[in-house]
Amino acid sequence: MPAPAIAESSEERRKRGEAVVRSLNNGAPQQALERMRQEFPFLAEATEAYALGDVWSRPGLDSRTRQLAAVAAFAATGQTAFMKLHAGYALNIGVSEGELKEIVYLITVPAGISRAIAASQALSELFAERRRQ
Amino acid sequence: MPAPAIAESSEERRKRGEAVVRSLNNGAPQQALERMRQEFPFLAEATEAYALGDVWSRPGLDSRTRQLAAVAAFAATGQTAFMKLHAGYALNIGVSEGELKEIVYLITVPAGISRAIAASQALSELFAERRRQ
Amino acid sequence: MPAPAIAESSEERRKRGEAVVRSLNNGAPQQALERMRQEFPFLAEATEAYALGDVWSRPGLDSRTRQLAAVAAFAATGQTAFMKLHAGYALNIGVSEGELKEIVYLITVPAGISRAIAASQALSELFAERRRQ
Amino acid sequence: MPAPAIAESSEERRKRGEAVVRSLNNGAPQQALERMRQEFPFLAEATEAYALGDVWSRPGLDSRTRQLAAVAAFAATGQTAFMKLHAGYALNIGVSEGELKEIVYLITVPAGISRAIAASQALSELFAERRRQ
Amino acid sequence: MPAPAIAESSEERRKRGEAVVRSLNNGAPQQALERMRQEFPFLAEATEAYALGDVWSRPGLDSRTRQLAAVAAFAATGQTAFMKLHAGYALNIGVSEGELKEIVYLITVPAGISRAIAASQALSELFAERRRQ
Amino acid sequence: MPAPAIAESSEERRKRGEAVVRSLNNGAPQQALERMRQEFPFLAEATEAYALGDVWSRPGLDSRTRQLAAVAAFAATGQTAFMKLHAGYALNIGVSEGELKEIVYLITVPAGISRAIAASQALSELFAERRRQ
Repeated sequence: MPAPAIAESSEERRKRGEAVVRSLNNGAPQQALERMRQEFPFLAEATEAYALGDVWSRPGLDSRTRQLAAVAAFAATGQTAFMKLHAGYALNIGVSEGELKEIVYLITVPAGISRAIAASQALSELFAERRRQ
Repeated sequence: MPAPAIAESSEERRKRGEAVVRSLNNGAPQQALERMRQEFPFLAEATEAYALGDVWSRPGLDSRTRQLAAVAAFAATGQTAFMKLHAGYALNIGVSEGELKEIVYLITVPAGISRAIAASQALSELFAERRRQ
Repeated sequence: MPAPAIAESSEERRKRGEAVVRSLNNGAPQQALERMRQEFPFLAEATEAYALGDVWSRPGLDSRTRQLAAVAAFAATGQTAFMKLHAGYALNIGVSEGELKEIVYLITVPAGISRAIAASQALSELFAERRRQ
Repeated sequence: MPAPAIAESSEERRKRGEAVVRSLNNGAPQQALERMRQEFPFLAEATEAYALGDVWSRPGLDSRTRQLAAVAAFAATGQTAFMKLHAGYALNIGVSEGELKEIVYLITVPAGISRAIAASQALSELFAERRRQ
Repeated sequence: MPAPAIAESSEERRKRGEAVVRSLNNGAPQQALERMRQEFPFLAEATEAYALGDVWSRPGLDSRTRQLAAVAAFAATGQTAFMKLHAGYALNIGVSEGELKEIVYLITVPAGISRAIAASQALSELFAERRRQ
Repeated sequence: MPAPAIAESSEERRKRGEAVVRSLNNGAPQQALERMRQEFPFLAEATEAYALGDVWSRPGLDSRTRQLAAVAAFAATGQTAFMKLHAGYALNIGVSEGELKEIVYLITVPAGISRAIAASQALSELFAERRRQ
C-alpha cells in the first residue's frame, strides 16, 4: 500500500473522488453532493476529496468488501439513509441482494434485532425502487 | 440460500456455533464464552446457538467479508473490545493486518476520525500481542 | 429458572414466539413481521424464534416489567418507532399511560431531555391512535 | 459563578426558563413546549425549570457559545430535529449562517461525514424557511 | 399523580433527592456525588435535586421497576459504569440477581448481543463484590 | 470565508495541520499522532491534513468556540478520552476551567446526566494533572 502522495493537489484528490462516485453511481454524478456544493462547499469538498478521493479510492480493499463494510457501519449506527445510498452503490457494482441481506442479518449481533429490522426496511425500499426502474 | 431448518434442535445449533468458534479461534474454545456459561447461561446459549450457530454459520457471505463487516460495525459503534476480538478472529482466518487497517480508515467516514483512532489503538494492541507470541 | 431446552426444535421456538406476539398484540399476528417473512426470512425467524420465542417468553420477568424495560431501552437509544410498537404492546397487556410517561421521565437522566421529548412525541401519537379506535 | 440558589422555588426556576425561551424565540413561547404541557406535564416542567431555567440561564457561558455547543452536541448524536430547533434559536440571537456551517464542518471529526451531511440538510431546510418568511 | 409542586424550594428538592439516595444505598450517602460537589457543584445539584429529587422520587412507578428500567437504559447505551451502580441499588432494595440477568438477556434485542455481554461482565463484577462483603 | 484552495498540495495541508497542533499543544507535537504515523500512516495523514489542516484551521470560528463545541460533541457521544484531550487544548489557549464545566452542565440536556458525570470525571483528572505540573 503506497504512502499518501503528499505532493498531490486537492484538485487531483477531488477529481479522483469524482471518478469514484461515477464508478459507484453508473457513470452519473451524485445529486445530493451537487446540491450540497452550493450551500456547504467545504462539506462537498470533504466528501469528494477526502471521503471519496482519499478513503474510497484506496487500493487495499476491493470495492465490494468496502461497500459491504460501509453498509454494516451505517446500519449498526442507525444511519439508514446512508445505508440505503451505499447499498444502492453496492448493487451498482455487482453485489447481490442476498449479500446485502446477509449484512443485515449480521448486524443483529453487534447492534440488535431492531437496528437490523430498520435496515431491512430501507433495503426493501431500495429493492422495490430498482424493480420499478 | 436455504430457509432456516425449523426441525433443527437447539443442541444442533449450539454445536454448529461451537464449530464456528473453533474455526475462528485456531481450534480452541473461546474463554470468555466458557466463563459466561456459569453465570449467564442464556447469554452463552444466545451467543453460541444464535450469534455463532445461526448467523455466523450462514453460507451467503464468506468468512473474511463477514469478519471485516463485523469489525466495521463494532468500530463504528465504539465497541472496541469486541472489535479487537473479531479482528483477532479475522487474522486467524487469513485476513491481513493491512485489510484491517483499511476498515479503520473507512470508519472515519460513517463514524468520525476519533472513533477510527480509538479502533487503531485497539488494533495496535492486537498486532503487538500477536508479535509477542 | 430452567436452563434453555437444548433438545427443543426451532419450530417449537418459533411457535412459542408466535404465541408471545399474539399475547402482546390482542390475539393478532404482527403485520410488519409477516411482510418481513417474504424478503428477509432469516430476520423474521430471528425475531420470532430468538427475540420472541427465546427472550420474550422467559419466565424470570413479568410481561409488564419487560415491556417497560424495553420501552426504556428503545427510547434511550433513539429507536422511537420500536419504542412506540412496544409501548402499544404494553398498553395491550394492561400497562397504564401513566406508567409509560414515567419511563419517558426517567429517560431524561441516562439519555437526556431531548431523547425523552422525542419519546413523548411518539407516545402522544400512540395515545391519539388508541383514542380514535 | 454563584452556587445554585437553594432557597429558590420551582416557580421561580420555571419563570426564568420561560424568559430564556422568549429571549431565544423572538419573544414568543415555544409551541412544542406548550403542547407537551397538557400530556407530559413533568417533562414540560423539566424542560422549562431545569433545562432552560437552571442550565440555559447560567451566566458562565455567553448565549452564542452555548447555542453553538448545543448544535454541535445535537448534530454529533444524530438528533437533527433538536439541532434545527437550536440552530434557529442561534440565528435569532445573532449567530450567523456561516458560524452554523462551521459547526457542521467540525462535526465531521468527532462524528463522521455522514452525520455532518445529515446536519447540513436540516440547516438547509432552516435557512430556506427563514428566507421564505 | 400530582402536578409538580411549583412552590417547592430547591433545598426541599435536594433533601428529597438525598433521601432517595439513602433509600437506594443502604442508608449511606453516595461517595461519587459527595466528591462531585466540590468541583462540579451544579452537576451535583442537578443529580440530587433534579435526577433523584424530581425524577427518582416520583410515585407513578415502583422503585424496583424504575431500577430495572434504568439498568436497561444504561446497558443499551453502553454506559456500563452507571449500569453497575444502578444494578447495585437494585440489589439493595430487593431486586434479585436473576431479575438483573433477565434485563441483560432482554437487551440483546434492542442493543445487540455484544452490549449484553459487556453488561453481563459488569454484573459479574458487582455480584463478586457483594459476595466478598 | 474563502473557498477551499484546490491547487493546494497535501503537504501544505499537513504542514498547516502541524501548525494547528503546535498552537493547541504549547508548541509541541502531539505524541499519540506521532506514534500513529508508524502503524496507521493514512490515519495520521487524515488527522493532520484533513482534521487539523482543513477543518481546525478554518477562519470562520474562533479557536475557543471551536474547542468548546468539540468538547461538547465528544462528551455527548461518550468519547471521554478525546474530550479530555480537547479540553486540555482548550486550557492551553486560554479557555477557563469554569467554561469547560459549563459545557459539562449543558451536556445534561442533549445527552443525559450520566454522560455529563462521566465527562466531569475526565475533566477532574485533567485539572488534577495540570495542578501537579
